[in-house]
Amino acid sequence: MGKVSPFAPKELPHLSAIDGVRFAACAAGIRYPGRTDLLLTLFDPGTSVAGVLTKSKTASAPVEWCRARLDHGIARALVVNSGNANAFTGKRGREAVKLTAEAAAAAAGCLEADVYVASTGVIGEPLDPAKLTGLLAGLVAKAEAEGITQAARAIMTTDTYPKLATRQAEIEGVPVTINGIAKGAGMIAPDMATMLAFLFTDAAIEPGPLREILAPAAEVTFNAITIDGDTSTSDTLLLFATGTSAARGAPRIGLAHDPRLAGFRLALTEVLRDLAHQVVKDGEGATKFVTVRVTGAETPAAAKVIALSIANSPLVKTAISGEDPNWGRIVMAVGKAGEAADRDKLSISLGDIEVASEGEVAPAYREELGANYMKRDEIAITVDVGVGGAEATVWTCDLTAEYIAINADYRS
Amino acid sequence: MGKVSPFAPKELPHLSAIDGVRFAACAAGIRYPGRTDLLLTLFDPGTSVAGVLTKSKTASAPVEWCRARLDHGIARALVVNSGNANAFTGKRGREAVKLTAEAAAAAAGCLEADVYVASTGVIGEPLDPAKLTGLLAGLVAKAEAEGITQAARAIMTTDTYPKLATRQAEIEGVPVTINGIAKGAGMIAPDMATMLAFLFTDAAIEPGPLREILAPAAEVTFNAITIDGDTSTSDTLLLFATGTSAARGAPRIGLAHDPRLAGFRLALTEVLRDLAHQVVKDGEGATKFVTVRVTGAETPAAAKVIALSIANSPLVKTAISGEDPNWGRIVMAVGKAGEAADRDKLSISLGDIEVASEGEVAPAYREELGANYMKRDEIAITVDVGVGGAEATVWTCDLTAEYIAINADYRS
Repeated sequence: MGKVSPFAPKELPHLSAIDGVRFAACAAGIRYPGRTDLLLTLFDPGTSVAGVLTKSKTASAPVEWCRARLDHGIARALVVNSGNANAFTGKRGREAVKLTAEAAAAAAGCLEADVYVASTGVIGEPLDPAKLTGLLAGLVAKAEAEGITQAARAIMTTDTYPKLATRQAEIEGVPVTINGIAKGAGMIAPDMATMLAFLFTDAAIEPGPLREILAPAAEVTFNAITIDGDTSTSDTLLLFATGTSAARGAPRIGLAHDPRLAGFRLALTEVLRDLAHQVVKDGEGATKFVTVRVTGAETPAAAKVIALSIANSPLVKTAISGEDPNWGRIVMAVGKAGEAADRDKLSISLGDIEVASEGEVAPAYREELGANYMKRDEIAITVDVGVGGAEATVWTCDLTAEYIAINADYRS
Repeated sequence: MGKVSPFAPKELPHLSAIDGVRFAACAAGIRYPGRTDLLLTLFDPGTSVAGVLTKSKTASAPVEWCRARLDHGIARALVVNSGNANAFTGKRGREAVKLTAEAAAAAAGCLEADVYVASTGVIGEPLDPAKLTGLLAGLVAKAEAEGITQAARAIMTTDTYPKLATRQAEIEGVPVTINGIAKGAGMIAPDMATMLAFLFTDAAIEPGPLREILAPAAEVTFNAITIDGDTSTSDTLLLFATGTSAARGAPRIGLAHDPRLAGFRLALTEVLRDLAHQVVKDGEGATKFVTVRVTGAETPAAAKVIALSIANSPLVKTAISGEDPNWGRIVMAVGKAGEAADRDKLSISLGDIEVASEGEVAPAYREELGANYMKRDEIAITVDVGVGGAEATVWTCDLTAEYIAINADYRS
């Protein structure tokens, strides 16, 4: 632990404040004393929310709470704690979420149903809501629009840097902003890796279309990254739209296919991709950032399955860590994916270097070319599986001895 | 490399010779000079064969060769080389197999269609058949019934010990023997892990029923182990039945459901399980042997998916390596498997220690109990997912820094 990712940004981006969003954080002592582990975010009335939640069959109590409220799609407050994931905590876990939401609603003067909750940290230990509930009124009092960097720090666990991203777009000529923060595959104590991401925009978009544009954008960004193939019980992505740009003349959007959303969709995907890449680059023990692109597949879904098979293969990931252009392992990972692939038409490139084509080593390929390429920090693997026209891209990092050291350490 | 598995047997089992099977091995210099890398096994006329081959979509040329001949189900010779997997070698790879089989058929005086071929080693490099073909006649001349230990050594790659197993059964009162050898998840050079297993019996069983009894036995043994979730292009399991026990009065079996096969089925499963466990115990960098049993699932297939999700999870495997009773990661792995599970009925045990029940930490569980249990060499994890009556068991090893070191080493 303590080692900072080689990809940590030299300086954090500056994010302009968004009207209608205020942040406050404090140290609640949930697991460790003296570190900021509680974040409250407040939204002005009229804020829509959409989300993408873990597909885990053992999802945490906060994830279940959010899932039940997202149909409604209205938000006034978000409470996030680190140190305890409130997962696999049974009935007490559900009660802890409810007590937290009640306290936040009372402090913020809103409905309990408009409060969203997320938790990250150790699994299977009861979360004492009394540690949080008494602090929320004080956080309401000090919440401020400029607090997003502090918010990004408050949700960190073993992330080695806070993750922030921002983009601007125009909706019918009116500029709107999308800000985002995320925490990545770090461990508390050490424990479960969890991905949390929260995005905020002043665009005025109804909950229905907000949901419809978030899901496909998440599919090609946050749902296209993998550190170790392990899915957390707590993964939560929420997008809050305050609608405050309406005061500056922006239209209120009621349909996802509204053509005026084109720029916004693009900017949203860029913020999500930026944050998702930051999460990969801060993956436990990561020394390489790897882009895996699969082309020539039968369907986009098949392309993604094959790309994830490559990106999750321990043998591929250790080869990358060892700077070994071991393309035989890529062939193996294509084969084990189970999706259609024509072995005798398969081609593989590392960056611009053609390594294999027509199911054999490429005539001009020499091992030194590959070995030299693998010394880079950022590696691009492209595989054409030769059976169709569909493609997909995913991102991952290498698997290093440092990953083992972090995760085999005794949980004290 | 060079470190011997802590599970290596103190002495190798003695396997009685089986009438109608002869072995010979030599150093062909396929990749490294001076090490035994070529095995020829000869079978008397009347030998049946059945097999289970990798499901990889990028299977090697020898796998394709075997697949095409297994319908026929008659065998006279088996040629195995290590050092080169002859995988992803295109048309030249197919030619190399054909030339090898032709040469073996000529040397052994049998049909080319009755020759089986298996290769393990580096992927994507052409295998020069001339290195093998000239040696086969000499191997035929020196083949002997007692050579099975030498055969087990000849197919090793980075296995740290040869893998042999034997059981006896009776068919209508006549004793028959099943001998088996296997090679495990070692790497050549280092390269692709490959599992090869060859079994030999003097039972008299037609190819059809031999196939029918082999497949389910493989499903609960070789198809229930995992080192790192990576499936080789070359995995090959072949069972040869010489029928020579007929000379001692054993009946010739023509139907898989013949009740006289009950003892044989059991013995076959035991040989396969014994070899499969030896493969896991010699997994790269393994220090723990782990049994994962999932009960209470909807179907046996669902139980196996959940068990493999646990057994393949890097976070579970690193926790085991660190002797951390981190059952939160087991909950995570159940959740990510995607099969039905009732989070609030989930129970988890480590050996006889109940860790969690009814979706929460068990009342009597204390961390010291789990921590103490995890110090053992052999760990048993049992999970009940609370939705049905089906179960499955799989076996794996831990994920250690040694695994990374072995697989991240540059392929020289």
